[in-house]
Amino acid sequence: MTSQAIHPLDAALALTPTAAAGVFTGHTTPDYWNMVGPYGGITAATLLQAVLQHPDLLGEPLSLTVNYAAAVTEGPLTLQVQPIRTNRSTQHWSVLLLQPDAQGQEQVVSSASAVTAVRRSTWGVSDAPMPAVPAPAEVAAVPVPENFPVQWIKRYEMRPITGSIPEQWNDQGDSSLSQLWVRDRPQRALGFAALAGLADVFFPRVWLRRARRVPIGTVSMTVYFHAGSAELAAVGSGYLLGQARAQEFRNGFFDQSAQLWSEAGQMLASTHQIVYYKE
Amino acid sequence: MTSQAIHPLDAALALTPTAAAGVFTGHTTPDYWNMVGPYGGITAATLLQAVLQHPDLLGEPLSLTVNYAAAVTEGPLTLQVQPIRTNRSTQHWSVLLLQPDAQGQEQVVSSASAVTAVRRSTWGVSDAPMPAVPAPAEVAAVPVPENFPVQWIKRYEMRPITGSIPEQWNDQGDSSLSQLWVRDRPQRALGFAALAGLADVFFPRVWLRRARRVPIGTVSMTVYFHAGSAELAAVGSGYLLGQARAQEFRNGFFDQSAQLWSEAGQMLASTHQIVYYKE
Repeated sequence: MTSQAIHPLDAALALTPTAAAGVFTGHTTPDYWNMVGPYGGITAATLLQAVLQHPDLLGEPLSLTVNYAAAVTEGPLTLQVQPIRTNRSTQHWSVLLLQPDAQGQEQVVSSASAVTAVRRSTWGVSDAPMPAVPAPAEVAAVPVPENFPVQWIKRYEMRPITGSIPEQWNDQGDSSLSQLWVRDRPQRALGFAALAGLADVFFPRVWLRRARRVPIGTVSMTVYFHAGSAELAAVGSGYLLGQARAQEFRNGFFDQSAQLWSEAGQMLASTHQIVYYKE
Repeated sequence: MTSQAIHPLDAALALTPTAAAGVFTGHTTPDYWNMVGPYGGITAATLLQAVLQHPDLLGEPLSLTVNYAAAVTEGPLTLQVQPIRTNRSTQHWSVLLLQPDAQGQEQVVSSASAVTAVRRSTWGVSDAPMPAVPAPAEVAAVPVPENFPVQWIKRYEMRPITGSIPEQWNDQGDSSLSQLWVRDRPQRALGFAALAGLADVFFPRVWLRRARRVPIGTVSMTVYFHAGSAELAAVGSGYLLGQARAQEFRNGFFDQSAQLWSEAGQMLASTHQIVYYKE
């Protein structure tokens, strides 16, 4: 298989089992590089992928919490994934992402907990229906120059509807709401790891709210999956509508709540994060 | 000290260090009993308390995710708490709550991850201001008969504003929104563990949305703390305004997003959970 034949997301998610139970190795990929490390969404996707590849997996992802403990550096990754409790229809997972420090000692750079579950058909209703927005074809995609230094942006086709990156950084922001159509670029059939990656696709709310760029870093992100694999398969490589807003900015941290719907209007995931900001 | 002299929350949070580093013992308390186990909020509070009692603690709680892996049974608790990464101003924690199974083997019944941080004064703004509601004194407290079998309800003074428990279970619900004033009963100065307990105070959204009682259980809950200890101290034993709503109910699971404000209108915590429901 040549490098052209594999999607960049699949390359990023390629994990190799080791002789030790629940230990996988991987490698950072330049395709999803952010400014000083990998895009947080690809780290989340990789942590979830380790669960999905575990031979004892029961059910499908229901929740995922990723804690970003330290900057991930370019190089090899070690993933330790462990089912800490297996019930009849739910399973609880602990995942550690490790990298060697300057002395060659493996250190935790990210950790995750996940719950997987067997879903059963029940009564259901949507209390947060998809907002009425223009169709993807009616919204222009953001052009990203090939020489743009932030790589992960090029891995998503983004069609902002409202709350796009400020054109002027003039400290005159007044809202933290963004809506956009988004999908993997190049197109790729949606799966759970891809959806976890998309959960982090929104640029920092504090940049929008202030119309000012300050240093930021996601500290913890949680994703709740509302769809099973059959529903994700039905989405295929279609667009998702993403919506994000902040609630509280105070003393160096803000929270973001977001939703991802299929173009057909089904909520696929709701997601929340708490983010550090400087100043 | 007599049993009258200690607040039921402090009794529930009493953890004893053991000879092993980061291992504490505790015990379930009848004061916070739910129907078939402890109230989920008291489990969250206890897991956070283990972090707060750790001698290496840096900073104050910023985020907490609790995964409810199995029913907690009446009896002793073992808490294993470990700082998995300590940075200059943030610290990442892993906590396990264990109980012996029928064979006397310790099993994970809950797990948590937490991030603690040193907060610094920065620019800030509230994008989710407290809704306009009647003052606590204008809203009647829910009377709970002393012989009511669910104990934890008696540990909170609840003054529902909207979305209280349906009076008729007639399958005619149409909203998942609840607002209430709430505080510990008896009154107690607010702290981080108490706030984590309050994050779970909302009755199941599926009961409200359907006006139908079905079996439920929280699978995972995340709390983001937006206030530091000085701000919690300023709240004292005052009321908090709690607001909760669901987003998506589907195939056995729904999510809930909630906020807790001080009576003065400051958001103290935002919190999210995913909950199992049957049928």
